[in-house]
Amino acid sequence: MGEAAEGRGRGKLILFGEHAVVHGYAAVACGLPLGAVACVRRGHSESFRVDHPAGSFEAEGKVLEAARGIVARFGLRLEELDGFVRLEVPVGAGMGSSAALAVALARAAQKLSGRGDAQTVEEAVSFAEGLFHGKASGIDQSAALGGGVFAFKRDGAGGPPTIEPVRAPTLRLVVAQVAPSASTAEMVASVSALAERRSSTAAIFEAIGQVATEGRQALEAGDLQAVGELMNINQGLLAALGVSIPAIDEACRLARDAGASGVKLTGAGGGGCVVALGPDEATTRAIQEGWEVRGWPVYTFTLES
Amino acid sequence: MGEAAEGRGRGKLILFGEHAVVHGYAAVACGLPLGAVACVRRGHSESFRVDHPAGSFEAEGKVLEAARGIVARFGLRLEELDGFVRLEVPVGAGMGSSAALAVALARAAQKLSGRGDAQTVEEAVSFAEGLFHGKASGIDQSAALGGGVFAFKRDGAGGPPTIEPVRAPTLRLVVAQVAPSASTAEMVASVSALAERRSSTAAIFEAIGQVATEGRQALEAGDLQAVGELMNINQGLLAALGVSIPAIDEACRLARDAGASGVKLTGAGGGGCVVALGPDEATTRAIQEGWEVRGWPVYTFTLES
Repeated sequence: MGEAAEGRGRGKLILFGEHAVVHGYAAVACGLPLGAVACVRRGHSESFRVDHPAGSFEAEGKVLEAARGIVARFGLRLEELDGFVRLEVPVGAGMGSSAALAVALARAAQKLSGRGDAQTVEEAVSFAEGLFHGKASGIDQSAALGGGVFAFKRDGAGGPPTIEPVRAPTLRLVVAQVAPSASTAEMVASVSALAERRSSTAAIFEAIGQVATEGRQALEAGDLQAVGELMNINQGLLAALGVSIPAIDEACRLARDAGASGVKLTGAGGGGCVVALGPDEATTRAIQEGWEVRGWPVYTFTLES
Repeated sequence: MGEAAEGRGRGKLILFGEHAVVHGYAAVACGLPLGAVACVRRGHSESFRVDHPAGSFEAEGKVLEAARGIVARFGLRLEELDGFVRLEVPVGAGMGSSAALAVALARAAQKLSGRGDAQTVEEAVSFAEGLFHGKASGIDQSAALGGGVFAFKRDGAGGPPTIEPVRAPTLRLVVAQVAPSASTAEMVASVSALAERRSSTAAIFEAIGQVATEGRQALEAGDLQAVGELMNINQGLLAALGVSIPAIDEACRLARDAGASGVKLTGAGGGGCVVALGPDEATTRAIQEGWEVRGWPVYTFTLES
């Protein structure tokens, strides 16, 4: 059977700036302590299993193709490996599960093979994310590889994005998946269609971009109350873009009633997850409990600076 | 007893642009078919009665002072009159009840006395609105006097506002008072405090101003679907300013579920009224019924062009 190699990749949350980021404005995101763990050893397997919070599946289609391509970059063939990936974040819920999976598997493959470097890992992940998402923004990949809080801005000329680490205070985050996730591509397309119809949409992107910039400053100043207030403002602006839904609105209300510093949808909207910032341990627990009563899967994260 | 004279003033709704209007952006408002009816005759009365949808009161304090000042401009003394005002819109709910009252009484006094002209009426109303609201924007007064849909923009130099009529298609509006009204002055102050704390607020005012401009264009183009969509966008932007409340959010959701073309709070927020645009008679009734089930007072208006 030989020695097993393990690799980890992080999930991600967007704290500020989704949708506007597509139009060239800065966003703020973070890598999560949870994400994906890949475990592989040399052997033989007919299939490659992915466990996730809601169940388990055998990789097929794009996932299988991505896994094959990732390990091939380290001179390995998936059929000559025995292993699995365990996802700690929900699949397709705007928490970067696919990038976490790709990073975890690439790192495990690198360790097992003793070949390739950080650059090879990045290339393998880019390849996989391209398969999963077409033209991916790169936010998920940055979070999955590096973790921490960071500011992200697309290069208008189509070059690589600007990624800058953001020094943040300890963040107590509670995340709930309040509805099935909408397709990110479809939500981005729906916002683009709105922007075509309504010229005022450009001013909303501008406002979201400014909120993200202020959010970064508030994080760097360690002002959690300001961070929360700006999350609330960001949520209103996302609602103005039409990507909030009743379940998201309800989750926001419940979290605010429980004392959240701020709460917003995270990701493309139309479904998926909300993220709340708790001012302290007790309030964070109250937010969590309020959401769990509604039957939503809830994840809590403490991001240490 | 002598002949009685009647005067009418209109209530108002802001369709687009509240709060941003304070910062120099255009807003769109309309005068309503309902408002206030004043009926006076020469006689003698110890008091002056105001009937309104939720009850009745004897004028005192500022209301009494305003009524005295209004009739005095037409050479009349309130004590030598017998009469009352009937308000058809709720008091202090963002529907311009005070301007409607002032216009109704001034017009009745003008008819009874045979003195003064349109200019005298306007002056009497300005005096009363100054008493009620301090430095009033002038939107309520314009609506109460003129009716119709109009664009309103403050003069940055402190001069008189620009008021332009807007040619609109027939509008089926449903209004519910979903919560006690917050003080307009306090809500404006809370938004100003937000603007002090968060520089991104300026971009939100800009976005609201652009939505109002697009809303005016949509009205002039007779595109009710666009008008509704812009109302929904406007509501998200108002939520971003922190002036929506759970009852307003709920009313918006109910109206959208019932098929409203658009729905938003109207006025300063923090309580008060929401306004929905119905695409047709049946949907308008469905919105009305959905709101009445919640126990909210509901008013429907059809504004003909």
